[in-house]
Amino acid sequence: MAPQYAPSLRSRLPLVAFLLETIFLILFVFFVKIEQQHEQSGRESDSKLFISSYAEFQDVHVMIFMGFGFLATFLVRYGFSGSGFNVLLAAMAIQWAVLINGFLLPQRHHRREIHISMKSVIEAELCAASALVAMGAVHGKTNPVQLLLMALVEVTGFVVTQWILRTLLNADPVYSIMLLHVFGALFGVMVSWVLHREGIKPEHEKEKTDRRTGLFAMFGTLFLWMFWPSFNSALVGDYRRERGLKLTVIYGTYLSLAVSVVMAMSVSMLTSSKGKMNMVHVQSSALSGGVAIGVAMTAVHQPWIAMTIGFCAALLSALGYRYMKNHMLFAFECHDTCGVLSVHAIPGILGWFAHLFLRLASSESTIAVQFAVYHICVLLITACMSLVMGTATVSKFGGTQMKNLWTH
Amino acid sequence: MAPQYAPSLRSRLPLVAFLLETIFLILFVFFVKIEQQHEQSGRESDSKLFISSYAEFQDVHVMIFMGFGFLATFLVRYGFSGSGFNVLLAAMAIQWAVLINGFLLPQRHHRREIHISMKSVIEAELCAASALVAMGAVHGKTNPVQLLLMALVEVTGFVVTQWILRTLLNADPVYSIMLLHVFGALFGVMVSWVLHREGIKPEHEKEKTDRRTGLFAMFGTLFLWMFWPSFNSALVGDYRRERGLKLTVIYGTYLSLAVSVVMAMSVSMLTSSKGKMNMVHVQSSALSGGVAIGVAMTAVHQPWIAMTIGFCAALLSALGYRYMKNHMLFAFECHDTCGVLSVHAIPGILGWFAHLFLRLASSESTIAVQFAVYHICVLLITACMSLVMGTATVSKFGGTQMKNLWTH
Amino acid sequence: MAPQYAPSLRSRLPLVAFLLETIFLILFVFFVKIEQQHEQSGRESDSKLFISSYAEFQDVHVMIFMGFGFLATFLVRYGFSGSGFNVLLAAMAIQWAVLINGFLLPQRHHRREIHISMKSVIEAELCAASALVAMGAVHGKTNPVQLLLMALVEVTGFVVTQWILRTLLNADPVYSIMLLHVFGALFGVMVSWVLHREGIKPEHEKEKTDRRTGLFAMFGTLFLWMFWPSFNSALVGDYRRERGLKLTVIYGTYLSLAVSVVMAMSVSMLTSSKGKMNMVHVQSSALSGGVAIGVAMTAVHQPWIAMTIGFCAALLSALGYRYMKNHMLFAFECHDTCGVLSVHAIPGILGWFAHLFLRLASSESTIAVQFAVYHICVLLITACMSLVMGTATVSKFGGTQMKNLWTH
Repeated sequence: MAPQYAPSLRSRLPLVAFLLETIFLILFVFFVKIEQQHEQSGRESDSKLFISSYAEFQDVHVMIFMGFGFLATFLVRYGFSGSGFNVLLAAMAIQWAVLINGFLLPQRHHRREIHISMKSVIEAELCAASALVAMGAVHGKTNPVQLLLMALVEVTGFVVTQWILRTLLNADPVYSIMLLHVFGALFGVMVSWVLHREGIKPEHEKEKTDRRTGLFAMFGTLFLWMFWPSFNSALVGDYRRERGLKLTVIYGTYLSLAVSVVMAMSVSMLTSSKGKMNMVHVQSSALSGGVAIGVAMTAVHQPWIAMTIGFCAALLSALGYRYMKNHMLFAFECHDTCGVLSVHAIPGILGWFAHLFLRLASSESTIAVQFAVYHICVLLITACMSLVMGTATVSKFGGTQMKNLWTH
Repeated sequence: MAPQYAPSLRSRLPLVAFLLETIFLILFVFFVKIEQQHEQSGRESDSKLFISSYAEFQDVHVMIFMGFGFLATFLVRYGFSGSGFNVLLAAMAIQWAVLINGFLLPQRHHRREIHISMKSVIEAELCAASALVAMGAVHGKTNPVQLLLMALVEVTGFVVTQWILRTLLNADPVYSIMLLHVFGALFGVMVSWVLHREGIKPEHEKEKTDRRTGLFAMFGTLFLWMFWPSFNSALVGDYRRERGLKLTVIYGTYLSLAVSVVMAMSVSMLTSSKGKMNMVHVQSSALSGGVAIGVAMTAVHQPWIAMTIGFCAALLSALGYRYMKNHMLFAFECHDTCGVLSVHAIPGILGWFAHLFLRLASSESTIAVQFAVYHICVLLITACMSLVMGTATVSKFGGTQMKNLWTH
Repeated sequence: MAPQYAPSLRSRLPLVAFLLETIFLILFVFFVKIEQQHEQSGRESDSKLFISSYAEFQDVHVMIFMGFGFLATFLVRYGFSGSGFNVLLAAMAIQWAVLINGFLLPQRHHRREIHISMKSVIEAELCAASALVAMGAVHGKTNPVQLLLMALVEVTGFVVTQWILRTLLNADPVYSIMLLHVFGALFGVMVSWVLHREGIKPEHEKEKTDRRTGLFAMFGTLFLWMFWPSFNSALVGDYRRERGLKLTVIYGTYLSLAVSVVMAMSVSMLTSSKGKMNMVHVQSSALSGGVAIGVAMTAVHQPWIAMTIGFCAALLSALGYRYMKNHMLFAFECHDTCGVLSVHAIPGILGWFAHLFLRLASSESTIAVQFAVYHICVLLITACMSLVMGTATVSKFGGTQMKNLWTH
């Protein structure tokens, strides 16, 4: 099938990528240095910090490029595009996130310099993850140039939101970055909704899946599922007093995911008319436990609380995926290709509620009210920013069909 | 092809999974806490322990979910079931293993509390591995509900066996857990044998393999093969005096596997009528070196001994896989889908012999006799328990065909 | 299609492998021990050394067996052979590299004993990597026995070259081993060239790729791409004073790869007549940034320099892959199946130039001239050795078609 966009577009993507890459390179020349602190201070704890950070960074790295890349291969027609463009977008989003993070959220008092460290690279990868979540909603409905620009706008929006949360509300950096799922999902759905209003009909036959590509998607899912404990704990500091918290986060995420995969399979079979598991359904909802616990993690100290959060997240997410996707389409004319609303937004908000509830249960009443107000503000700001940015993004680019650009 | 079991069964699996998950959750509420020791003691060595344990835990985690899951995809008709149910079974087996391990084999003097730590999670994953080995023998001959219950019974049996070994014979925990391959394989073969007597004919056409799914199985095999050094060394303590042993185990497993993969390929080509490699054959036997060295590892101190064990294990395993599988079927009416007898049981027993021989060679005669008696008792108890539990398991559930439950 | 080589050949590979494995085993009996130093010295830093080395070793291990193995699956007809023989060759090459490295390049003053340590195993894996690069040029043109012998000759040649560089020129071990790409690629191309002159016509239809195996190749590429920072930094010492350098290498490789994947995609689309990405093209050139920075890494201290090297490497490599491969074939009658010349040799030589330039820019004139002479000698010796060894290798073995030996 011939691409429906003009041939000129074919040459636009490489030029845009080339141009952006050159701009990034020039910005790196003037502003970015490699963190040299470890060498100079030579403190004992620094080297341990490095050792454990690098392993966690690799886990997150695998999730971004292998996990998200192959998760999208379940769409037969976009198998290659899914994994290929995923690498392109993620590589550019990470470079941009290093820059924008360094400008807006400088880590220490560096005089107009951005220092690359394990922390800054992990943060950049998490920002890229939020852009990849947003991609999930518009897969198959945009051309690659739009996807690339959308990814960069999404990263910018997410970092600006974090800057607002940290500056205005003095929010915890780890907590604010864990809202990446909510931000990304709402952003993506908003883009998809506005695109839809401009007359693009979802073509259902393009969503068809198949057994072989299904196994590739299983691969992506498993990589995300297995390394999620590292994803959640990567930014929980390695310093002595936070070590217990880091371990608690790891065990909590692990248990939450174990429960959510069981629940996702059960719900998928129960709600299917033939009693069969729908693989895409299971793959999507199995991850919801990790999303939910990620938002609530600093307040979770008991294994059973983590498991209950995973239980509820998978239940809501699996039911949402089954019943909400089509309702969304017909009621609001909003088409969400990978169902990011039920996979990322709903569990994220559930985790937010769990966080609120657990904090309220363990605080005195005056502090509790303060916390509740603060907590609600954080979510509202994140939601508003993502919806506004999502709408603003589309208004600039017209929507045409993204085609499979690969030769095979 | 329509499922041959009653439609009511279709809805049984989600309900059973849902029910079991709820029971696990309630047990976790009352009995399980997260280990907080690291934070309180704050000793220097603890943090290093954590860092290296988490990386090893991740390696084992990858082996269980990625390795075992995709190893089973070589059966074309069970590709999805293989990787899908593997995740379900492993996730439930791990939760159950944390509980049953905590009840029967408490790690320290905790008053009726189970504390989750890296060690307890790694042990739970190894117990799940033993259940997954048992699965290999009955793939394609049981329905999912049976598989799930069988996995939980297998884990219970394995933990009870360990409790007997540790309590009665004062066995080394690491050594007793490494018998997981022998226990799992004998358990699975026994279940398969009893099922067979109840009239289920193996359908040979269901064992057919294909090139594409073959590459997925190669994936699973490689993940198991690459991370096996972590699998064997994960529970060898990280404490100063055992560090040398841990490294020895890592190098030994690495060399043993390198030799066994070469031998598996050679034997596969030599014994084939056309001189071609049979991929499934190679994939199965390549791992035998890791199984054998796992049982013998604490007595192996020279690289060439490790390599010789890998050499013999691959030789026996590859010949066994080629010639024994069909003989088993016709002589004993026992059908072993993935050949777990030659992949896990034979190398495991070979490793046991190597362990015995190496210890006898380096001990005085009085101690040698003592050790031999003890060592033989350990194997006999493990074998008896696995055979008895395997038989008992089936008597409760009738055997019907496991169908491909996935929609695609 | 029936194999064109005599049936006797079918039984030759297992016998050759069996014989070689037995010889290796006997050599291990007499010469190789497991390093026990960590236990004896018990120094604090040793245990940290171990922890970080083992994680890096695993990353390199994954690259060799998963990355290189699946990278070659893009050739439909050699999918299985690619990943299967890759494991066989790599496993034997590693054992041989441990021996030959220990004989020629003893690490400390061990009296005629080779001690296995993390360092020796990582070095052996890097030597195997250089053999796997050479394989890339002759894929589909040799039979497995030839491939196996060629791999062992290549490893020997590479270790001898390193011995010359370290003994005669007193070269830095890390720098000399990083020339593995240049050595492997030139060796492989030379073998391919001599084979060609003996009358073997490349059969273009055997190079055809397909969508499904393409996703497997994407897998291999991504594993190489993701873990390359570990590949480059694995041998950069863990000692206090080099820690800063290790981090610099990690960040540099990471950034260089991020830029090179973007550039590889852009160039692939720009140079294609239809404006589509050629997947094999992208997969090959995306890795060039890692090759180039690997040779230059000890002289790179700024992120933008690393990025510029990645930028140029991908540009040259992608253009070379597109235009040079066919010119090579017609002008020099040299057929290079995986395009190793543009993927490994050109970026390697670019990295060498970058290294020279960066050192000259930061040195005084007298030292600069000395360094330039030394630096040019290193490259010339490496190139000469690889070309001579490559030619010598083929003269002994006649070239016949390598067939797909797998039963499926």
